[in-house]
Amino acid sequence: MTVAIIGLGLIGGSVGLRLKKSGMTDHIIGIDKNEVNSAKALELGLVNEVMGLLEGVKKSDVIVVAIPVDQITVLLPQILENIKSDAVVLDMGSTKGGLCQSIDNHPNRKAFVATHPIAGTENSGPEAAFDSLFQNKTGILCDVEKSSTKAADTARELYEALGMKIIEMGSQAHDLHIAYVSHLSHISSFVLGQTVLEIEKDEKSIFNMAGSGFASTVRLAKSSPNMWAPIFAQNKEHISKSLGTYIQNLQEFKAMVDNENVDGMYDAMKNANQIRKVLDGIDLKGSNTKPNKKAIVEN
Amino acid sequence: MTVAIIGLGLIGGSVGLRLKKSGMTDHIIGIDKNEVNSAKALELGLVNEVMGLLEGVKKSDVIVVAIPVDQITVLLPQILENIKSDAVVLDMGSTKGGLCQSIDNHPNRKAFVATHPIAGTENSGPEAAFDSLFQNKTGILCDVEKSSTKAADTARELYEALGMKIIEMGSQAHDLHIAYVSHLSHISSFVLGQTVLEIEKDEKSIFNMAGSGFASTVRLAKSSPNMWAPIFAQNKEHISKSLGTYIQNLQEFKAMVDNENVDGMYDAMKNANQIRKVLDGIDLKGSNTKPNKKAIVEN
Repeated sequence: MTVAIIGLGLIGGSVGLRLKKSGMTDHIIGIDKNEVNSAKALELGLVNEVMGLLEGVKKSDVIVVAIPVDQITVLLPQILENIKSDAVVLDMGSTKGGLCQSIDNHPNRKAFVATHPIAGTENSGPEAAFDSLFQNKTGILCDVEKSSTKAADTARELYEALGMKIIEMGSQAHDLHIAYVSHLSHISSFVLGQTVLEIEKDEKSIFNMAGSGFASTVRLAKSSPNMWAPIFAQNKEHISKSLGTYIQNLQEFKAMVDNENVDGMYDAMKNANQIRKVLDGIDLKGSNTKPNKKAIVEN
Repeated sequence: MTVAIIGLGLIGGSVGLRLKKSGMTDHIIGIDKNEVNSAKALELGLVNEVMGLLEGVKKSDVIVVAIPVDQITVLLPQILENIKSDAVVLDMGSTKGGLCQSIDNHPNRKAFVATHPIAGTENSGPEAAFDSLFQNKTGILCDVEKSSTKAADTARELYEALGMKIIEMGSQAHDLHIAYVSHLSHISSFVLGQTVLEIEKDEKSIFNMAGSGFASTVRLAKSSPNMWAPIFAQNKEHISKSLGTYIQNLQEFKAMVDNENVDGMYDAMKNANQIRKVLDGIDLKGSNTKPNKKAIVEN
């Protein structure tokens, strides 16, 4: 079985590394419009060969689309028009509702499965790829009733080969929930980084006084703008609502600070402490460590 | 030399464990108004014996005050009135300006050194203590010109025994900078936890869809309200300003989301990416791992 991976960054590259070891495929074609990335992916052994988009699509049994979500929306119809008759296409973007809607009437809709691996790091590009990125993480398949049985089964097989636990849900529900547990935390972190950099022009004093707590909270501010700006635009309704609630809660907290309302702050924080239960669950799902690289260990 | 530690939680307990190994002291007296904490600290070997506040203070050469900042403000004058003539007192609270001001005219002011170890985890209590908590982290001494040479030297010796790198600065500058690199990130994390819990009443869906990025950003929401509510009240001016700027930046980001202003979001995030330089510096300062416990490895 030949697999094509479109987009040879952290996600696509890690898919390549893992699938090579899994035995699911004997040949992986890499596709990336950035020739430096293609060459690097080949050099790092993420894929077996690289070629152009349509050539690679036509030769493959499974096509994995791992590019920024705005580019998925543009390329997916074109990809679906050029697949072999029994090929399966799946994307790995972080937004699902709009994409599914946009190809609802495509003649090859049944060959497509909308997916989202909840895995990543703040690093990007082929050099950031590692084969255990997906291990024990959650992979989401959306609107599988719109895919053929074969396509849905192939997507499940691929996610199992990646080592992921599979959840299936509707694309609209996905976008709502992911706004809170992923997109919002990225924005809170990006804007925290921005705010601290703005005020603390003298970076040396940040360096000296910041501890691992700050490092943890602001870590996602290192993430790729190329990847995230289109996600925020595509999921704008849910993000706007979650961000609005976040801002309102911050304003209420600020009022308690201004009024030295220690009891009010205590109650709000005691309530937020319940997140511990949720986090203990996440820890059990495995770590995001790239082996062979210095890990940031925080606790 | 006898050292008293007032407050036998994460910070005080970790000071005890480390000093025992350092050779700086041959006897550590533990003091905690919570008898369960005292008994636990003794059982865990964090201190050599436990006793009441004034009895312990009168017997000690160095007194380390590691209790919530509102209690430091109340107890410090009383402690200073009861020390031996050549004893040294240092506190380890996260706010320094108001405390220093409040004892400016105390007859024993010179025996006191205002300090802040930039180290901690989101866990609290004697069981959270571990002896490498301070290793390679930054310890701040404030307004040392108001302390006697002996007191300042003793504080430096103690921080070196803890394995910390020492920075000295004014108490007002401390409170300004720490608002941005510590207090603000705690509030952003607490309120993020609160916001997600509010909306996602069904905790199961958070558990399933949240990844390590969310875990990292919201980790500090597990921190102790007992410790943090008084800190936010004491540093309210700087926190209010930093939180106001954060909220304003979030509102501007929300407007870009609402307007699908991808270029604007891209630029803001690209700018925030510069935090990477700062974080690389923090990583070099060592990790916050408690050995013998499962570490949350994130990268």
